[in-house]
Order: sequence, then structure tokens, then C-alpha cells
Amino acid sequence: MADHDATTGVLVDLDGTLLDSVYQQVRAWTDALRAAGHEVAAAHVHAGIGLGGDRLVPWLLGRHVDHAGDIAADHTERFLAAADTLRPTAGALALLDDLERRGVPYTIATSAGAEERAALLSALGREDVPVFDAEGTGSSKPAPDLLLAACDHLEVEPANALMVGDAPWDALAAARVRARPIAVRCGGFSDAVLTGAGAVRIVDDPSALIASL
Amino acid sequence: MADHDATTGVLVDLDGTLLDSVYQQVRAWTDALRAAGHEVAAAHVHAGIGLGGDRLVPWLLGRHVDHAGDIAADHTERFLAAADTLRPTAGALALLDDLERRGVPYTIATSAGAEERAALLSALGREDVPVFDAEGTGSSKPAPDLLLAACDHLEVEPANALMVGDAPWDALAAARVRARPIAVRCGGFSDAVLTGAGAVRIVDDPSALIASL
Repeated sequence: MADHDATTGVLVDLDGTLLDSVYQQVRAWTDALRAAGHEVAAAHVHAGIGLGGDRLVPWLLGRHVDHAGDIAADHTERFLAAADTLRPTAGALALLDDLERRGVPYTIATSAGAEERAALLSALGREDVPVFDAEGTGSSKPAPDLLLAACDHLEVEPANALMVGDAPWDALAAARVRARPIAVRCGGFSDAVLTGAGAVRIVDDPSALIASL
Repeated sequence: MADHDATTGVLVDLDGTLLDSVYQQVRAWTDALRAAGHEVAAAHVHAGIGLGGDRLVPWLLGRHVDHAGDIAADHTERFLAAADTLRPTAGALALLDDLERRGVPYTIATSAGAEERAALLSALGREDVPVFDAEGTGSSKPAPDLLLAACDHLEVEPANALMVGDAPWDALAAARVRARPIAVRCGGFSDAVLTGAGAVRIVDDPSALIASL
């Protein structure tokens, strides 16, 4: 802790960052979109993963669709059907333990809905971790609302916070409020995309962040 | 045809290039590896997609494993179980029609095994297309053996061939024999990775190549 300002805090994304879940998300969204009559390339769906669930469908289709909520619900059902294939990313639990042991204020910050959040935490294998969810926090990522509310909860200034996430949307949200965006590659996003979104440090997975946040 | 040298030929990869199949491949390989006791991050599996099936497991694990053939067979079974979710990429059939109509010598060139090849061609929805398979052609991608044999079959000099593929391994194989590597982004590989492997042109999907090869 010696090199830590007491006000430094760490926010950690859940889906794709602590869980190796992005490829299941891509398949679930691609299939749900197709079932609703929208053929979208899987690689394009991948590019939108990490956006708020309310934003992904209009972002992909380039327009508002009335049945976006139905697509999102169908996606959740398909994603939960693959929940038994979810595993923690390398070092996920060890990173949380490290933050805990070193007394760094931290929380998982997630905009996943209740059902997905429960499945993800169950796959993480640790249900006693601090989780700040997006319910009632306003606009979804890449808006910084969740991040601001989580910082407020930790009593940390956003400019003193680190945001660890796998998606460019995490980095964008953090950069907007001068939090420090740190990216993990385990979501399958390229360094160019992560850097372009503002990530100041990119590592393969949470294991590389142990003892260094 | 006016701007074409008569000896120019086009080789087109199947899996990931004409079919939107990479995310199914990632899931199938990740699950098959796990079933054999190897936990590998999905994004890392993704990076190896397009390698010859005989090469992927040692590439991912960093060593020879005796049961790699069993993992590959289990992967094939899992991939075929998702065959109903395979769809052509945008412009896949139209590109083949365009080459046919313009009299450009071309063939699909694939190292997929017989069962996967059949499933991919069935999903393409056109079984009368020319397909050159890797059987008996020697070492798998990124070795250029398949590409050289396919050029020989087309009676085209490799240096006068274009290779259209989604994976860096396609581009590497082409660059090794001075064929012109053209990449499509629909496999989910980044421009940096594709350029690094030698791709001289990168487009979203086959639709962008119509009337321009």
C-alpha cells in the first residue's frame, strides 16, 4: 500500500473482464438478432459487446427498433443457457483478493441485469465480493453514470479511480470522467481499439494486474 | 475482365471467410480443450483460428500433447452441433458468382476436414462451387502447401494469385509464395494482426470485393 494515495479506488468490470464470457455473449446476441429477423455479422456484434444492453441493438442496426427489448430478453435466455461454460479469466479471483488484502477501495461495477449478474457471479465462484450494479444509476456505458455512482459509493474521486475493463466502452466511460482506463485483452478486443478508446495500459488478463493497481 | 491478366487466379478460404463461423469455432475449440483438461482463454483460441487443425492445439498449449487428435475430433463434433447457426458472410455467394461471370479462374481452397467442409458448404447453400481441399497437399496453414497445390490446379502462378481469407494464417501462407493476400474482417481479426501477417488490402466482408478482384 505504500505507493497508494488513500483515495485511489479500483472499479472492475464483471462480464468479459472477470469472466471469460464474451464469445458466449456474441453467440447469444447474434442468434437472438437472427431470430428477430436481423442478420448481423458476429464480428460486428463482438465490436458492440460491453455497450449497455439497451444500446447494443440500435448501435448494431443503425436505427431504433421497437422490439429491441424482446431481442435483449431472448439474448439473456440464450446466454443463460450457456452459463455452464462460463469460467473466471486468469487471475480474476486473485486480483480481487489482492485488492482486499492491500486495503484498496474497490468494487465490481457491472451493468449486467439481475439474472446475468447472478449467473456471472456464480461462475466466478465467489458470491461475497463487493458488487455495485447499475440499477438506478442512469444512462448505460459508454456513459459514465455507473462509474460515477460506483466512485461515489467508494467515496473516491473519479480522477483517482482506475477502471479495469475488457471493452472499449469501459475505457471510454472512464476517460470521460478522467478515471484511468486499464484494459484486459481477454474480451478479444484489439490493442488499437482499446487504445483508441483511451486505455492507458493493456494487459492480457487480470493476473497481470495483481500487486500493481 | 478487361483489366485482368489471363493468368490471374483467386483462391478463397471457406471457414470464416465465406461462412460466418469463427465464433462457433472458438466456442467448439474452447469447450473441447476444457473437456480434455486444458483451460485456454477464448480470445487466445480466437487468435489461433485458421491454423491447420493439427497445429492449433500445440500452438495454444505451447507444447506437443499426445491427445491433440482426440481434442480436434471432439471439437469437430461440437462445431457440427452448431452447424444450424452457420450463415454465409455478406456477399459470399455474390462474390463467387462475380468471379464465375467474369471468367476469373478461382476456387475455394480449404483445409477443413471432410465433415466440416460438408457442413460449411451446406450452410453456404451452394454445392456446385469449385472446392479444392487440402487432402494430400502436405503441411497445413500457415504453410503454403494448400495454396500452391490450388494454384497448380488452376494453372496459375502463385505470384499471380490473390488469396482471400479472414485469418492472419491465410495472409502468411499467401505472402510466403508472393501471392497477394487480401483479408476480410468478418473473422474478427484486427487490422493490425492482418496487416502484420502481410494483408495488402482489408475489407469488411466478401461483398466489398465484388467486381474488384
